[in-house]
Amino acid sequence: MLLALIVSLIYNEQDLIGFVLSSGLNMLVGSLIIWFTRNASKDIGKREGFIIVALVWIVFSLLGSLPYIFTGSIPSYTDAFFETMSGFTTTGSSVLNDIESLSHGILFWRSLTQWLGGMGMIVLSLAILPIFGIGGMQLYIAEVPGPSPDKISPRIRQTAARLWVIYLVFTLAEVVLLWLGQMPLFDSICHSFTTMATGGFSTKQASIAHWPSPYIQYIIILFMFVAGTNFTLSYFAIRGKLAPLLKDEEFKFYGFIILLFAVIITAGLLFSTGLGVENALRDSLFQVVSIITTTGFATTDYLLWKPILIALIFAAFFIGGSAGSTGGGIKIMRIVLLLKNGYYELKRMVHPNAVIPLKFNNHSVDSKIVTNILAFFVLYFMIFGVSTVVFMLFTPDLETSMGAVATSLGNIGPGLGSVGPAETFAHIHPAGKWFLSFLMLIGRLELFTILVLFSPSFWKQ
Amino acid sequence: MLLALIVSLIYNEQDLIGFVLSSGLNMLVGSLIIWFTRNASKDIGKREGFIIVALVWIVFSLLGSLPYIFTGSIPSYTDAFFETMSGFTTTGSSVLNDIESLSHGILFWRSLTQWLGGMGMIVLSLAILPIFGIGGMQLYIAEVPGPSPDKISPRIRQTAARLWVIYLVFTLAEVVLLWLGQMPLFDSICHSFTTMATGGFSTKQASIAHWPSPYIQYIIILFMFVAGTNFTLSYFAIRGKLAPLLKDEEFKFYGFIILLFAVIITAGLLFSTGLGVENALRDSLFQVVSIITTTGFATTDYLLWKPILIALIFAAFFIGGSAGSTGGGIKIMRIVLLLKNGYYELKRMVHPNAVIPLKFNNHSVDSKIVTNILAFFVLYFMIFGVSTVVFMLFTPDLETSMGAVATSLGNIGPGLGSVGPAETFAHIHPAGKWFLSFLMLIGRLELFTILVLFSPSFWKQ
Repeated sequence: MLLALIVSLIYNEQDLIGFVLSSGLNMLVGSLIIWFTRNASKDIGKREGFIIVALVWIVFSLLGSLPYIFTGSIPSYTDAFFETMSGFTTTGSSVLNDIESLSHGILFWRSLTQWLGGMGMIVLSLAILPIFGIGGMQLYIAEVPGPSPDKISPRIRQTAARLWVIYLVFTLAEVVLLWLGQMPLFDSICHSFTTMATGGFSTKQASIAHWPSPYIQYIIILFMFVAGTNFTLSYFAIRGKLAPLLKDEEFKFYGFIILLFAVIITAGLLFSTGLGVENALRDSLFQVVSIITTTGFATTDYLLWKPILIALIFAAFFIGGSAGSTGGGIKIMRIVLLLKNGYYELKRMVHPNAVIPLKFNNHSVDSKIVTNILAFFVLYFMIFGVSTVVFMLFTPDLETSMGAVATSLGNIGPGLGSVGPAETFAHIHPAGKWFLSFLMLIGRLELFTILVLFSPSFWKQ
Repeated sequence: MLLALIVSLIYNEQDLIGFVLSSGLNMLVGSLIIWFTRNASKDIGKREGFIIVALVWIVFSLLGSLPYIFTGSIPSYTDAFFETMSGFTTTGSSVLNDIESLSHGILFWRSLTQWLGGMGMIVLSLAILPIFGIGGMQLYIAEVPGPSPDKISPRIRQTAARLWVIYLVFTLAEVVLLWLGQMPLFDSICHSFTTMATGGFSTKQASIAHWPSPYIQYIIILFMFVAGTNFTLSYFAIRGKLAPLLKDEEFKFYGFIILLFAVIITAGLLFSTGLGVENALRDSLFQVVSIITTTGFATTDYLLWKPILIALIFAAFFIGGSAGSTGGGIKIMRIVLLLKNGYYELKRMVHPNAVIPLKFNNHSVDSKIVTNILAFFVLYFMIFGVSTVVFMLFTPDLETSMGAVATSLGNIGPGLGSVGPAETFAHIHPAGKWFLSFLMLIGRLELFTILVLFSPSFWKQ
């Protein structure tokens, strides 16, 4: 928040007092928390981990909305909280109908919430949350089961630091490349924050459509794609080891599915509109990469496309970025394992006595991970279904309800119907905004971390 | 078909000649098949099983549509095939806009296709198709792995015969009870056929709404509920052994989920319409039981309800009847195991070192069954998603597309949008009808039996 305060100082804006008040209140609350927990045990168990993580995200969002209130940028607390949760969870849904009227300080803070949430999510998922087994976390669990964080902290910190550096390097690279493409430096910084976080907040009401420059749009496509790629693999790739990335099954499927959707939609646009080939390809590639990586930037309003293309875009809502990236949603790795298991099951039908284990990158996948993914997938669709019905309390339109729920749960940004890319969430009933904020949180923490708090067995003993 | 011919004779209808031609052509084709396969090996393996089952359903539907053509009841072959596939698969979607104009012979044949399909499905799933492990089939696989049907044929035949008898007894009971409620005998027979098959074809354009009698509607609710219950458990129940039924986890959840939906929708109807309590309860219970059992009868048009209630009904499209019943869809047992696994996963998060096996009716569920259900669930939703996008070729309306695909895949009958309970499928493009017919077949044979034919490994070696 002090960074946004500095931006406010640089631009000599009236919002300065708002940031001073917000920062002061944050410091006060932070000091009180430290004071009251000074004698607490440092021994953090599984349960404490879940509670701490959930509280961190909720308290951050409660306090992170103060600048909107104290600067008068968003007068309603519900709206300010929605905008902040949408920021930290890198969803990118907004209640703002006139983004360009905001001060530089607020625009910077808004983009920064996403950058923090994106990075925070990576560090948390690898360092704290025992959510998804394969990759760094699998090693972590295998090596140090049980609640003794001290023994492994150097390794986890090392990993986290490495990810920090690469996140920063990619962000800086994008700033420079956007700036070279005639985007003002301030906008370049803000958009680089929200691209690398797969967040999707823009400094302009029209999102990236504000800059019709193909160069700028391709740069953003590239960095959205990078942000949706496993950061560990990207780290090795920029250090010259390309093989792990190119041989990775998740990365191959990620590239394949984006190309597949982009080619079909390009064909559809060429068939149904007067767009040129390059323009149709760029529009479809941008929207597909933006949705699949769960960024949510827009260069065009896909709701104006042919219904079949809208349906295709909506199908892409249920994919998500790679594991170990800042992308949200179901995630490519789960999709790959689910599809493989489906295909293997057909093999098992024909050869019922053969043992056909599920493999990923040539390693057998533990049955524990299979039941975990099964649980994730079922809970994801159950939450989607139940929430869609519940959200019909706030809209009479099934498509709007499905779109709003899917985009919040997947941390994407734009939805369908009255919450499409050219619309905002301003008109949603306040209770509906709190409901969607909750879905963003569930989605960002990959369901279990929040759901486990509602399970009776969690609170027993 | 000869039974329909007899009905035609009894009512002395002109359609007689159509049935004579159809029956004759069927006998000819049947004789030719027997002649050409007279020297074929009797040794039927796994692969042959899948091919035979798939061919039986396709050939039955191709030939079963002949009476519609030869009597001139449905002039278009596409429409006749759609109606027949919808019959055999017990879906119940129809292209007919003036059902009452049809002859008794055709109405009888139309209802009979569902009764045969319903029974056929039970016998097939227990006797031939190695689809779903728990229950009779689990024993079957455990006892006789590999392609040697002779050893177990007495047991399977015994099971099949038992199911035949109970199916017949329930059907007769419903005929008598409907007839006592002033429904004409002919309509009582036809509706009992299509109730017990969870089919949903009616002899009236208005479906069950044609008979506003609460008695008739409650009788049909009761028998739809019975048809969606595991037939083996019903068999024991009518022989006085109620405990296996009442202790069965699937049955308990089946009752619970129906009550849950019915209560919420009753409350919604009381809140949003001028209906009395009994009427609201009956309407909601009828529609909920009809959808969850995948029957598809209607006493009212649920598309006229509040949007949130429509969304709730659509959510019920993704449940289905019990395993071992004539109901289609995802099936209660899978839903129960999926929900349990989801809940257990939350426990596993808190106690990562504890072994928490998935149990059903106090028996541990084999991990093979878990991966099978995972595969089923993923394939079901993937087929639903891809098909919804594909079906947008035939309708610009996302809800219509989702409704048509979900109702075909789940073998339900009515959908959403322009294929709701008060509409028919007549206006759908012919290619769309073939597409939906294919989905009905995939859904009826529980995905794998058809999908395995498209897997390269099936055709290797």
